[in-house]
Amino acid sequence: MASKVRLYLDHPLAQGQTVQLPAAQAHYLSGVMRLPAGTVLSVFDGRSGEFDATILQANKRGGELEIGELTRPFQPPPDLWLAFAPIKKARTDFIVEKAVEMGAARILPVLTEFTNSERVRVDRLQAHAVEAAEQCGGTFVPEVAEPVKLAKLLDGWPGGRRLMFCDERLVGETGELPDLPGPWAVLVGPEGGFSQAERTRLRKLDGAHPVSLGPRILRADTAAVAALTLWQHRLGDWR
Amino acid sequence: MASKVRLYLDHPLAQGQTVQLPAAQAHYLSGVMRLPAGTVLSVFDGRSGEFDATILQANKRGGELEIGELTRPFQPPPDLWLAFAPIKKARTDFIVEKAVEMGAARILPVLTEFTNSERVRVDRLQAHAVEAAEQCGGTFVPEVAEPVKLAKLLDGWPGGRRLMFCDERLVGETGELPDLPGPWAVLVGPEGGFSQAERTRLRKLDGAHPVSLGPRILRADTAAVAALTLWQHRLGDWR
Repeated sequence: MASKVRLYLDHPLAQGQTVQLPAAQAHYLSGVMRLPAGTVLSVFDGRSGEFDATILQANKRGGELEIGELTRPFQPPPDLWLAFAPIKKARTDFIVEKAVEMGAARILPVLTEFTNSERVRVDRLQAHAVEAAEQCGGTFVPEVAEPVKLAKLLDGWPGGRRLMFCDERLVGETGELPDLPGPWAVLVGPEGGFSQAERTRLRKLDGAHPVSLGPRILRADTAAVAALTLWQHRLGDWR
Repeated sequence: MASKVRLYLDHPLAQGQTVQLPAAQAHYLSGVMRLPAGTVLSVFDGRSGEFDATILQANKRGGELEIGELTRPFQPPPDLWLAFAPIKKARTDFIVEKAVEMGAARILPVLTEFTNSERVRVDRLQAHAVEAAEQCGGTFVPEVAEPVKLAKLLDGWPGGRRLMFCDERLVGETGELPDLPGPWAVLVGPEGGFSQAERTRLRKLDGAHPVSLGPRILRADTAAVAALTLWQHRLGDWR
């Protein structure tokens, strides 16, 4: 019971088109998955929905697909950003994967005072976002932004975008998400938490809502999924 | 700013005791962390809370700690089990780690029709649960049970224990968790989902509540965190 291969194509799609495949994807279909010409896949472009596509030919140098019927309409995620402090490489990869599955529209690596991280490779994280979108059945691929310092991000914070930030010192306070629609962002701190200065700055931000994630200390990747769950359940496309 | 080392000790603890360390933990303190005698750690036994403990001596063959003040009372998690279908090794390890951070009281590997997994090493998973408890600041270590077939688990399902099961076909239905306290379990399916027969069986179980986790397909480790978040937020110790 093999399920259909699902590919993101960086090319606007429409039924009836013939699309050239880049060498890497053609090699994946022919050399890795060993799919013969005539095989039907699912493809999506991040803006037009999901289509059936038939392999016309594919080898390690390139290939061609014929785009068939629309199988799923384009479903953009809610206007929700996930901002997070990058941590160890494997955990950062996980956070990006989780953000895509959980339906974040934009992913922002943020450098905080206690961030202790190697250099962030945005191209690699973007490739992870594509893979996660292929895997989770979504029709959208969130952009991974260039890393930015938290202070700079807050200086230029867009008016009207609310910010849910997860503060492990909040246990006992209610910290319930308000039922306010519109653009939001979720901010998850590094494993050492936010500094006192950062916490003060965040609480003063217009539209900021501190939220507790329970009495145990969550790893950053766990916290990202938990925070996105609370938001999606209350305000997003899980309702 | 090094934070205190935190160790689980498989020994009932009380202030004023002198506790013998097994060789592995003594080696960790002396050889890996290079902590000299006199260093103060945090220790917990999974039932008495968390204590300060001073290293009297430690080398690779063994060591001794003196137990000091209680620093955190014992806080048992709510009576919530996490049942999940084991998947690839790394993901299974993650699910156990996440279950501990999220405050599950018992972790049950469950074999379903679409489970496609190597042999489950319960001792290794239990060690992961201990590490996660050390890391997340909890004072409790959930037991990892022996794997059991889903049909057998449901045949012997304890009366009065409600079951939240996460069904990816539920999108559109509400599937809200009822506000009913008491013993619960969360069941997360394998990446291929439940079979039709399993789904029917689950829906017929007394006290079963299907819940949707949104329009995208979540990996099993993501689904475990998301489901535990919904439960803890509504019925558990995040309230």
